[in-house]
Amino acid sequence: MRDLEIVGIGQIPIAEHWDRSLRELAGEAISAAVEDSGQIRFDVVYIGNMLSGLISHQENLGSLISDWIGEPGMEALKIEAACGSGAAALRSAIFHIRTGEIDTALILGIEKMSETIGVETTAALATAADADYEVAYGLSFVAINALIMKSYMEYYGWQHSDFAPFSINAHQNALHNPFARLHNPITENDYCNSRMVSTPINLLDASPTGDGAAAIIITASDNIATKRNGTPHIRIAATTSATDTLSVHDRSNPYWLNSVEQSSHDAYTQAGISPKEVDLFELHDAFSIMAAISLEACGFAEPGKGPQLASDGDITLSGDIPIATMGGLKARGHPVGATGIYQIVELTRQLRGEAGLAQVNEAKVGMAQNIGGSGATAITHILISE
Amino acid sequence: MRDLEIVGIGQIPIAEHWDRSLRELAGEAISAAVEDSGQIRFDVVYIGNMLSGLISHQENLGSLISDWIGEPGMEALKIEAACGSGAAALRSAIFHIRTGEIDTALILGIEKMSETIGVETTAALATAADADYEVAYGLSFVAINALIMKSYMEYYGWQHSDFAPFSINAHQNALHNPFARLHNPITENDYCNSRMVSTPINLLDASPTGDGAAAIIITASDNIATKRNGTPHIRIAATTSATDTLSVHDRSNPYWLNSVEQSSHDAYTQAGISPKEVDLFELHDAFSIMAAISLEACGFAEPGKGPQLASDGDITLSGDIPIATMGGLKARGHPVGATGIYQIVELTRQLRGEAGLAQVNEAKVGMAQNIGGSGATAITHILISE
Repeated sequence: MRDLEIVGIGQIPIAEHWDRSLRELAGEAISAAVEDSGQIRFDVVYIGNMLSGLISHQENLGSLISDWIGEPGMEALKIEAACGSGAAALRSAIFHIRTGEIDTALILGIEKMSETIGVETTAALATAADADYEVAYGLSFVAINALIMKSYMEYYGWQHSDFAPFSINAHQNALHNPFARLHNPITENDYCNSRMVSTPINLLDASPTGDGAAAIIITASDNIATKRNGTPHIRIAATTSATDTLSVHDRSNPYWLNSVEQSSHDAYTQAGISPKEVDLFELHDAFSIMAAISLEACGFAEPGKGPQLASDGDITLSGDIPIATMGGLKARGHPVGATGIYQIVELTRQLRGEAGLAQVNEAKVGMAQNIGGSGATAITHILISE
Repeated sequence: MRDLEIVGIGQIPIAEHWDRSLRELAGEAISAAVEDSGQIRFDVVYIGNMLSGLISHQENLGSLISDWIGEPGMEALKIEAACGSGAAALRSAIFHIRTGEIDTALILGIEKMSETIGVETTAALATAADADYEVAYGLSFVAINALIMKSYMEYYGWQHSDFAPFSINAHQNALHNPFARLHNPITENDYCNSRMVSTPINLLDASPTGDGAAAIIITASDNIATKRNGTPHIRIAATTSATDTLSVHDRSNPYWLNSVEQSSHDAYTQAGISPKEVDLFELHDAFSIMAAISLEACGFAEPGKGPQLASDGDITLSGDIPIATMGGLKARGHPVGATGIYQIVELTRQLRGEAGLAQVNEAKVGMAQNIGGSGATAITHILISE
């Protein structure tokens, strides 16, 4: 199997970009990645996006983007796996290079969510859940996560305030990330008194959506013309994917993420490491409960002990398993189909030692996990700095 | 590069399936493909779909389908390339097997178009075009194709009636395909007097949409446990993809399909054949003009001579280059994201010699071409019976 490296990263600040179109946001992120790579040439474009058809009435994103960046003719297509679309696009691009047909791929994660045509954002996000057996009965996406959190708290005896460290950590780390949507530190008091959204999930349990675009360029290590000088080589040591039932009510245990367990276990095997060797973990903290149960399913905490890891400080930049080091979904923001590529951009910055005040000391092995639906699709990547 | 074969095919009739959900239609096609394959086990599911998010408010199709077919946990995702989504999904699955990570893949093409939530089908189909620079000015998808046809007719001096043989051939061939949407033979008189849709495209120039699902199973030839007895081996001899500008007005020549030319040329090279060796061609005849200019860009006719090929009878089952042998998009029907897989199913039936009264004699080399947008994305596959 061909070894692959990340040789270029780019991103735009996550915000409400009312003044720029989907293609303009994409172009900015791509330009940044190309510049970062030292103007490397790429052969194909893979795009992670969830909602452009429903929200912007724009499909055929492959042609849209290759055309916009001045490469009409270049192969390009869009991959959809709900909020896991970004990582799914990366995974597909990895396969393409590993066939030997091409050497270098651009992967774009893009979502423009502020401006919608004839649909509300909550309804759009609910398309990640089961339209016939969840959404038709009135369940929004946050309501599904609220049911998971409620049953988890009742079963294991946690209080809502026990989840505060997840959100406090994310907001704290986002302060050092100029691309993050939120730059306000929060206290436990802020967390506990935040406006309720869907009991027990309040506003500070939930990640903000937004308009975002992030891009990476990957190439085969045997493609020596692309070797970088000076900066570390960021090798893609594992790429894995697994699914679970789409409806949460079809699972025997609603707060155990089978897809996350399987995908992370496969990733450790592929990379030849144990969870202990992971220096930082960009997880899919769309809600604080997802952070807790992802840590458990990935083997960083015993079942039911995720919040303990947070209250012990293990998830902070100097802890055993730093998470959301640039703010995570919670405070960097969650432009759904773009999130998986933001995670890879941030992990790469960490592994290059370019994370500034958010830097994790001696970060060599990083894991990113992108989830579509409430654990329905989980895609994991492990990057190693060499 | 690993050789791959098609070992299972399944499809449902294209119609308005008001009584069954998206997942039920998918399940029927998949069951048929699994049965046809002799119950082969597969490792992943790739799904071609364009409109489920916009029309049915259902994304995360990967998890939806793997869950529905009793394989929760199995990797699955959706690929979107507008009306070329089906072939794009096949192409991605081919890459996955060629990495050596897996041996066997199920590819599903699915589109449920009759029942829509808050959007008209015409608006949904327009998402294949440029939302900002075509659709915002009132251009529907059929109107874009009408402009192409009008300028082509004026430049080369063809009359509207010269395109009649394309539609007559498609309707004639669909009579022998029980899965086709239309089973009515038409005459030149019917064609010329059909109701106008967007001048010069009338109802008998345009393909009908519909609800459809088709599935194929592909496996590596070195995966010997899967060798079929008795029936020919259907090898995937080429898979290629190319794009063009999304907006037709950005092209120097609106009736020359650059993406089709590039993708078919690359396919001939990959398969090691010339156009002359192609025994039948399942092309993307969403409109009769697309049939004519696809034949030209693929090298079967000189520029401007596509309609001549049709009037000479070369496109019929016994002609030099039979097209739409099971009805094509025009009469089999065009459930957009599913079409690319219907084409592969039909080509496989032809190459196995199982096409009944629609059989092309001694069909050994078949080509399928699936297009997203008005030539914005073109994906070509060549299958060879061995």
